[in-house]
Amino acid sequence: MKTKVYSDRREKLYDWMTAEHIDMVMFEDFEGRRNPGIRWMTGNPADALLFLSAETRRSFLVPWDSNMALTYCHAEVVYPYSDFDRDPITALYGAASVLKIPPGSRVEIPSVTSYTGFLKYVEEAGDYDIICRNNGAYGEAENFRAVKDEEELLIYRKAAAITNELIDLLEEKVITGKLPTEIDVAQFIEAECRKRGCEGTGFETLAAGAARSHYIHAFPSYTAEPFAGPGLSILDFGCKYQGYTTDVTLTFAKGPLNEAQETMLALTETAYAKALSMVKDGVSARKIGLAVDAIFRRAKKAMPHGLGHGIGLEAHEAPSLSSRKDNTDQLRPGMLFTLEPGLYDARQGGCRLENDILLTEAGPEVLTRARIIRF
Amino acid sequence: MKTKVYSDRREKLYDWMTAEHIDMVMFEDFEGRRNPGIRWMTGNPADALLFLSAETRRSFLVPWDSNMALTYCHAEVVYPYSDFDRDPITALYGAASVLKIPPGSRVEIPSVTSYTGFLKYVEEAGDYDIICRNNGAYGEAENFRAVKDEEELLIYRKAAAITNELIDLLEEKVITGKLPTEIDVAQFIEAECRKRGCEGTGFETLAAGAARSHYIHAFPSYTAEPFAGPGLSILDFGCKYQGYTTDVTLTFAKGPLNEAQETMLALTETAYAKALSMVKDGVSARKIGLAVDAIFRRAKKAMPHGLGHGIGLEAHEAPSLSSRKDNTDQLRPGMLFTLEPGLYDARQGGCRLENDILLTEAGPEVLTRARIIRF
Repeated sequence: MKTKVYSDRREKLYDWMTAEHIDMVMFEDFEGRRNPGIRWMTGNPADALLFLSAETRRSFLVPWDSNMALTYCHAEVVYPYSDFDRDPITALYGAASVLKIPPGSRVEIPSVTSYTGFLKYVEEAGDYDIICRNNGAYGEAENFRAVKDEEELLIYRKAAAITNELIDLLEEKVITGKLPTEIDVAQFIEAECRKRGCEGTGFETLAAGAARSHYIHAFPSYTAEPFAGPGLSILDFGCKYQGYTTDVTLTFAKGPLNEAQETMLALTETAYAKALSMVKDGVSARKIGLAVDAIFRRAKKAMPHGLGHGIGLEAHEAPSLSSRKDNTDQLRPGMLFTLEPGLYDARQGGCRLENDILLTEAGPEVLTRARIIRF
Repeated sequence: MKTKVYSDRREKLYDWMTAEHIDMVMFEDFEGRRNPGIRWMTGNPADALLFLSAETRRSFLVPWDSNMALTYCHAEVVYPYSDFDRDPITALYGAASVLKIPPGSRVEIPSVTSYTGFLKYVEEAGDYDIICRNNGAYGEAENFRAVKDEEELLIYRKAAAITNELIDLLEEKVITGKLPTEIDVAQFIEAECRKRGCEGTGFETLAAGAARSHYIHAFPSYTAEPFAGPGLSILDFGCKYQGYTTDVTLTFAKGPLNEAQETMLALTETAYAKALSMVKDGVSARKIGLAVDAIFRRAKKAMPHGLGHGIGLEAHEAPSLSSRKDNTDQLRPGMLFTLEPGLYDARQGGCRLENDILLTEAGPEVLTRARIIRF
């Protein structure tokens, strides 16, 4: 992708920093504290710190792997993390020096910084006015990322096309017995998406045959056991292309099904259709979640998870379509999210139907073609 | 595993809580804040909150997936997260009510709680004295987990045996061209370990052919490109058995190699041997890291990552064998950790040799048989 795509994204942050009177912000993307904002703003895909200066509008990347940064990164300044003893506060001082951030400046650290971590910054980086808050730079970057830009939609349409190709292949191969076990199904997806240029699956594929589909997320994710025998089997996967992952769930329903299973499938399809019909500019995402909860409640059932979530550089990002009372997200054009109603019963098995929806100015566009496959 | 194994582990925490005058502690294992302490203390492998009461010595699990908890969990009380609106503070009040924790009690929340999250607990759970600190319950559980118990070592020996079987198979198949691409190698490991009862690989396998081995962690982790062509190829993987993952790295060195590559391999083997010779009860782990850094420095090279790390329910846990100045860990019998010296050069490629070491009363025992394979 062009350098300008990344610098344009950083410009959004610089403008926000100026308005907020923040002199430098810090992003962190390490094990346990992943944040793809760094990839979004620089292209660097893994393990790094990023510092942005509002005044000079320059970015300073501190990668763990400098060979990786040489290949992928579009920041103005790059110093290896080992130059700073692999210590974030030492790196912060290094960045402040290069970016000419004077003592007393307002420096915002990641909103996910632990309480005790925050106290350490305040003590050891006392030359600066350390700020840590919700709805700061992390929240702002996540809000920007929730509305996809043109470059992102181009990439995502490619990811969706690969996903749809795999869905059709999977339907054919599973029904005809060419992928008999959970391992076969999961490895088929992994190999075929990588052969088509994907970085891999976006998360560990969940392939749960009828004996295990009553778990929301099967554990282990897939095994040597049969897939798609009689009853309900769930297949939840995503293809990650240039960082962006799809997230779809197919249910394979091999007959004869009993009445309880038929009811679960029908309710899930009804809930999905209802949710999709409510997707429009400005709607409260929670309201859609509540409408689906109500459909299940009237049938004396309950969905144990949220209705959907944003997708992009992360498999779960803004907006949330959960019915939780703290959910205030509104859907807007450019947002990309899943709808994934499902029901789980220890005796009957589980079913889930999940597709990826882009809200355009003209209404919802369903980018993927996952479905309940009865056979 | 037997219920008593888990209750014995919780007893250690209860004793510690009593000594620390903590009435209730909370553990959290959710996306973005993973903590396998819950699995260690209850058997529940995923997505849950756990509350422990020192006074009544009872545990209260709040799983996201209650079907999962029915199958795996050994806690005394289990309530589904949906009963608490999937909100941690609501769950905390629920746990306090069931476990009979009176207002004013000292309640310790996860040490990783963000600064802003902490403020929310203080505001919304004001009936309790909320404590958040480093070296609290999370640190204590991690210290307990760093020294493996008998049940853990039984499981780990099985994980290591599967890993060693795969190493031998990989050597034969890679050298004879039966696994020509990175995808082939990675999928062979994934399928074969699951067929042998593993939950999967412990982390995404890194299979980097000669064109990509100069990255510490190849990105993407594996591709359709050739593996083990002329030069240096790196294969880093782990087998996860009943939750416990191994972590090994093989280097495949296909000749003819140039002098620079031969030097890299020899230095890596020298560093590995030196590190292993220093492993003993009471030694400073950092000192071993510094000794390896010195070997590389004398050859005008540098290793861009730490020398090793504890392994167990996490691929990276205590102790650390990094040479960072804040590393104060000491090696003790029962600890299980990697040694993984490596060198990376954008022109020559990379090499790394990583094995899993158990420190016993009698000295180090090398559990895995990864090696540099010259062919």
